[in-house]
Amino acid sequence: MRWWWRTGTTLLVGAGLGASVTRLLSVRGRQEEENGAGTLPELLRRVPVIPVPTVQASELTVSPGGSGAVMKYGFPSLANIKTRESYVTSYDTRTRTASWVIERLSPASLSGPSDRKYCEFKEDDSVHVFHRATNADYRGSGFDRGHLAAAANHKWSQKAMDDTFYLSNVAPQNPHLNQNTWNNLEKLCRSLTKSYLNVYVCTGPLYLPRQEADGKLYVRYQVLGRNHVAVPTHFFKVVILEQIDGRGVELRSYVLPNEPVNEKVPLERFLVPIETIERASGLQFVPNIMKRTSSLQAITAR
Amino acid sequence: MRWWWRTGTTLLVGAGLGASVTRLLSVRGRQEEENGAGTLPELLRRVPVIPVPTVQASELTVSPGGSGAVMKYGFPSLANIKTRESYVTSYDTRTRTASWVIERLSPASLSGPSDRKYCEFKEDDSVHVFHRATNADYRGSGFDRGHLAAAANHKWSQKAMDDTFYLSNVAPQNPHLNQNTWNNLEKLCRSLTKSYLNVYVCTGPLYLPRQEADGKLYVRYQVLGRNHVAVPTHFFKVVILEQIDGRGVELRSYVLPNEPVNEKVPLERFLVPIETIERASGLQFVPNIMKRTSSLQAITAR
Repeated sequence: MRWWWRTGTTLLVGAGLGASVTRLLSVRGRQEEENGAGTLPELLRRVPVIPVPTVQASELTVSPGGSGAVMKYGFPSLANIKTRESYVTSYDTRTRTASWVIERLSPASLSGPSDRKYCEFKEDDSVHVFHRATNADYRGSGFDRGHLAAAANHKWSQKAMDDTFYLSNVAPQNPHLNQNTWNNLEKLCRSLTKSYLNVYVCTGPLYLPRQEADGKLYVRYQVLGRNHVAVPTHFFKVVILEQIDGRGVELRSYVLPNEPVNEKVPLERFLVPIETIERASGLQFVPNIMKRTSSLQAITAR
Repeated sequence: MRWWWRTGTTLLVGAGLGASVTRLLSVRGRQEEENGAGTLPELLRRVPVIPVPTVQASELTVSPGGSGAVMKYGFPSLANIKTRESYVTSYDTRTRTASWVIERLSPASLSGPSDRKYCEFKEDDSVHVFHRATNADYRGSGFDRGHLAAAANHKWSQKAMDDTFYLSNVAPQNPHLNQNTWNNLEKLCRSLTKSYLNVYVCTGPLYLPRQEADGKLYVRYQVLGRNHVAVPTHFFKVVILEQIDGRGVELRSYVLPNEPVNEKVPLERFLVPIETIERASGLQFVPNIMKRTSSLQAITAR
């Protein structure tokens, strides 16, 4: 028996998100749609098809960060998957940043001898030079190199922390946001390891449309440097929380605008329905999570 | 012994492309960079990795359209591959249109009893409803539903022509462009089947930055309807031509702005270096083509 619910409604203050957060399908409608989407037409059964990788995640717990175990709740998308010591990511060759980065946090991954002072932001040479961000692209741009998987989440190993400094795990982020409210959200994720069995965090950029003077909707974002690194309009963080009694999974999904955000605004004000992120990002979370639990509680307001 | 050359320089009149066409690496520089990109760091050799599908394309010639044979020169990217009667495509779930569509044209595929009057644009139900374009999204938008793989390229089978009417093979296109200069480019591709052994055509959208009043570069594009279908700023067409004597492969790559284009401007004015498209789209063409030929001639001007 599968069920999930949403409590309350969206309370979102970020600018530019309006058009994307208005459509919340009922549980019934959503399930019907997903069944429909699962019916592949006959012609799709022919070659060539990319096999979906089977990750026996829960059997692969080799380290506190556990890049195999990280993927217990599946891949939100399947393009350009890279596995690092501390996270798994899908790279977007067009925007020169990740589509998403997933990490698993635990008390063990949060403590250790690693030190940020030994880390340097570095190009990801597994990405073709045509599609790769460089430090020079960020220089003088006014944007921080904002970690997607946070460095402080991976103190358990210097290598794990080092890996968070690949520019493929980074996106241009407003410095005020990065150093204040976004930092607080990262701290919140770490604090949740005290009250949940496991904490999975998926982070990524969004490029959301907004209405312009002509009444039409436009996506507009700056690009930086020689390699045109996209500046996201917003960031999302999807937090998958395994309850300590093992009875269920809780889902919290946040969207923050890539601009200064007053630290006094409570973080729960940035909770949105997961569907908002799924629609805007082109990713899927819920179908994957539902393969792993019969009890999903989506928190969209407090 | 591998070699390729470019003749002449770019003569491009399309608006908004300036920032992307200026950097043309030398052959030497490019080869070094590709070698570098091929050296994956040790950590990438671990799970999970998506296998690259091996397509024995030239052995799969089952029909004039030949969706297997279509892929002789490889996949420009690996996300959401769909195989249809008349083409192979990669779907972009975020923009609700294709990243690219590849078809193979031949005199046999261009003739037959199929009639467009039996075709209707239709949703692609292999795409999740959250990420799918609908006819309603286009209604009243002022944009045509522009085919990426053209209907008239697949007269050999009604099914092949029908398949070009999936909205996943369509992007919002300026009506004047669609019905005039773009149509002429499609006709040119068909006419090339008379003088080349095989004609492979890869078509897709581009979202190119342009400089705004503040001196910075921005990508800006409209989105249509409830599902926010992205309106590309430009379109590309990469044409891979196998010479009749079997001695080599010729490459022509075009970029046209998604706006009215004077039909009197010769099509060769829209030729660009393939690198321009590779950088802007996040796709790769040349490395795949070079696996199939030792003689690639890239035509960038006439």
